[in-house]
Amino acid sequence: MARLRVHNLAISLDGYAAGPHQDVTHPLGVGGQRLHEWVFGTATGRRMTGDDGGSTGVDDVFLERGDQGIGATIMGRNMFGPHRGPWENEDWTGWWGDNPPYHHPVFVLTHHARPPVSMQGGTTFHFVTDGIHAALDAALDAAAGGDVRLGGGAATVQEYLRAGLVDELHVALVPVLLGSGERLFDNLDGGPAGLQLAEFVASEGVAHARFVR
Amino acid sequence: MARLRVHNLAISLDGYAAGPHQDVTHPLGVGGQRLHEWVFGTATGRRMTGDDGGSTGVDDVFLERGDQGIGATIMGRNMFGPHRGPWENEDWTGWWGDNPPYHHPVFVLTHHARPPVSMQGGTTFHFVTDGIHAALDAALDAAAGGDVRLGGGAATVQEYLRAGLVDELHVALVPVLLGSGERLFDNLDGGPAGLQLAEFVASEGVAHARFVR
Repeated sequence: MARLRVHNLAISLDGYAAGPHQDVTHPLGVGGQRLHEWVFGTATGRRMTGDDGGSTGVDDVFLERGDQGIGATIMGRNMFGPHRGPWENEDWTGWWGDNPPYHHPVFVLTHHARPPVSMQGGTTFHFVTDGIHAALDAALDAAAGGDVRLGGGAATVQEYLRAGLVDELHVALVPVLLGSGERLFDNLDGGPAGLQLAEFVASEGVAHARFVR
Repeated sequence: MARLRVHNLAISLDGYAAGPHQDVTHPLGVGGQRLHEWVFGTATGRRMTGDDGGSTGVDDVFLERGDQGIGATIMGRNMFGPHRGPWENEDWTGWWGDNPPYHHPVFVLTHHARPPVSMQGGTTFHFVTDGIHAALDAALDAAAGGDVRLGGGAATVQEYLRAGLVDELHVALVPVLLGSGERLFDNLDGGPAGLQLAEFVASEGVAHARFVR
């Protein structure tokens, strides 16, 4: 059975998966980039940005796992872009430039329909307006036997957790205090029930906790 | 200068320092004991309960530090007992039996006056009704040059964080999901501002993050 997996979802020690006040210059909200600095210290993270070097330890192992066996991705609209409400035009094609680091179909949850957008490198953004179950069905189809990655953000992960649909949840705990932002573990209404700790290991800068159903 | 220090304040991955529904049989709320199981695996923790053995690694080092140089403790009333409102009588003398593991003056924040209670082993519980600054002044006096430990619970630590009075904050992050309870990092209104990460290290079951002002 193909699974729905969350990987490398970084949260601060005070629980925030993003800082407040997301806008076009702050994709992760103000201060949120501190949650992802560790990524760019790893070999896998540096490859994503076209750079050499980087660590090959615990952080790198977890980062790399996030792509293994994945055939499609689901994300919330706020992870796709900073806009709210109806699309003003179709200029925005994500934060990731012409060749996004997905290389497979990506399903963006939104209340506002839009035609699919094909990018370089095999990424196509599909816009799903009929909810999380429909997005999961479409992503499982597109993954053709592969697993589906649930990218984020916090509100979207919460929706799938509440519905009991998350099979694997890997949280990367970063010891910073953001003070405000988007909490991951909130509005869950018992959502994490049934998730069992499978792995807990830390690097010098990140504690990785992986839960499976 | 004597300092106000928080040590071994355990929180779940979803941010709770205690489970919900504290009562006389659930001092840490329902499920909250899962936050403290690691304590009883350490040599220091086992000594507190009169047992031999236990680990001497990272967890033990952090646990032991929590007593070093401490001359007095402050705690909220909910850490002292499960009762709310006026004292019905003076029978309750804490969760810890006749010889509590403090062995120094302990200042309990409450809205309801009560005479001090002297216990075996040097612990005296004083009940402070005029707020967190008065409790800190009294504890610093009683500590006679030693530091003051801020024991908890979450609401009390929040009060001192909001007031900018916490000099050292050691959080022990336990990779469990409690789902509900008393959040530590909440209602802070910028309280952690000025706290800098001084140390981050994990055992196989706990990630320790220590902040200093």
